[in-house]
Amino acid sequence: MEIVILGAGNIATHLAKALKNKGFTIAQIYSRTAESAKALSDMLDVPYITEIDDLYKNAAVYIYALKDSALETLISRINVPEAIHIHTAGSVSLNIFQDKTSRYGVIYPLQTFSKTKNIDFENIPLLVEGNNAETTKILMDIANRLSTQCFQVNSEQRAKLHLSAVFACNFTNYMYAIAEELVTESNLPFDILKPLIAETADKINNLSPKLAQTGPAVRYDANILEKHIAMLQHKPELMKIYKELSEQIHKMATTNQ
Amino acid sequence: MEIVILGAGNIATHLAKALKNKGFTIAQIYSRTAESAKALSDMLDVPYITEIDDLYKNAAVYIYALKDSALETLISRINVPEAIHIHTAGSVSLNIFQDKTSRYGVIYPLQTFSKTKNIDFENIPLLVEGNNAETTKILMDIANRLSTQCFQVNSEQRAKLHLSAVFACNFTNYMYAIAEELVTESNLPFDILKPLIAETADKINNLSPKLAQTGPAVRYDANILEKHIAMLQHKPELMKIYKELSEQIHKMATTNQ
Repeated sequence: MEIVILGAGNIATHLAKALKNKGFTIAQIYSRTAESAKALSDMLDVPYITEIDDLYKNAAVYIYALKDSALETLISRINVPEAIHIHTAGSVSLNIFQDKTSRYGVIYPLQTFSKTKNIDFENIPLLVEGNNAETTKILMDIANRLSTQCFQVNSEQRAKLHLSAVFACNFTNYMYAIAEELVTESNLPFDILKPLIAETADKINNLSPKLAQTGPAVRYDANILEKHIAMLQHKPELMKIYKELSEQIHKMATTNQ
Repeated sequence: MEIVILGAGNIATHLAKALKNKGFTIAQIYSRTAESAKALSDMLDVPYITEIDDLYKNAAVYIYALKDSALETLISRINVPEAIHIHTAGSVSLNIFQDKTSRYGVIYPLQTFSKTKNIDFENIPLLVEGNNAETTKILMDIANRLSTQCFQVNSEQRAKLHLSAVFACNFTNYMYAIAEELVTESNLPFDILKPLIAETADKINNLSPKLAQTGPAVRYDANILEKHIAMLQHKPELMKIYKELSEQIHKMATTNQ
């Protein structure tokens, strides 16, 4: 099965590597950015193009792994109606392909990727959605070769998972960023927080986060909360976040009891 | 060196175990709650008391590992002026001991503890503060036997680290709790988010969180942000958090550029 990869960013890189490792043939890589296209092309020993007019038209599958904002324009410029077309986005509709082909869908990897950091693709949850049962089966077959964690979902579930991932990944990382900022103000290294960050993430493997919740907000310890708020006088936006999250944590903790 | 442990909760349990493992003699355990006192006493084969009047008075060190709110009352009831008195709290003043003894301080473990989950105490950062140089040295000697990550800090640094830990641990865990709530609404298991949570925590070992930040808020992708906000119509308090954090992430991302 010949596959064309459109995109050469983080997701495209990890996905293309995983596909090649599992014996799929990557026929071509497209990226508007020659540098990214060449890097991925060199890594996988696969030809690349930077002009969509040079697209290889005989592949069975076209996988679009690029920014949401670039998807629509790119799709409008591609005409391979007999192939299967797949995007990898959490919140883009399946129907973005509907005027272009009769077989299309989504394989959304629920993971955060960095180009320079290796990751075991077999453990990445892949959320699969096809435009009909036959396409879904083909997509699930592809996904199952790449990962042991494949889930057939509908559009609503996929969107909800993307939203959940924003909290579990993007907002969590922002909490780390705030913590780093505060630690740095006290002239101590961010490293000092790393065991705590690792343990916090590890804890929820055995305990629901609702039950794992600790800290001054749980018991609404006014004494500490006031001290902390006073320490954030110089950063009103962080003070606002501190107050809001503390209030909600206390509400969650009291509802649980 | 004989040590008395006051408290039998999470921190007391892990600390007492680590002290015993490293050859310190735990002379006695005190807890108001007979059940907790007995459990820790059985685990370490050490006598326990539930009445403070029965306190052993000949120990060299008294370690108070209990709720901030219980500290002051308990200290007021203990008179062993020749011993060293240590508490383990992030945000309680050193001077809580000042009328009771001439040698006192803090050993604050920067970690989140669960009673049932083992943790390698040697990797826990211990923040040490004594009331004078001589006491600080004794406290650092104790700390250095327990952990390879000991830092001498002042009260301001300790308070700031506690505040940072609220963001890095308590608020992060709350993000997990929200994610769990949303995933559950979509009838998918919370497990589906675990690889993402693990990778997000792992990523910052090699990359500053400010640079590791990803997601729709970074590029202020109005299309996705609006979809997500619409999906939170039924949970106005989560919608508020989503908007606030997205705005701040975008601000951080544009400041970094």
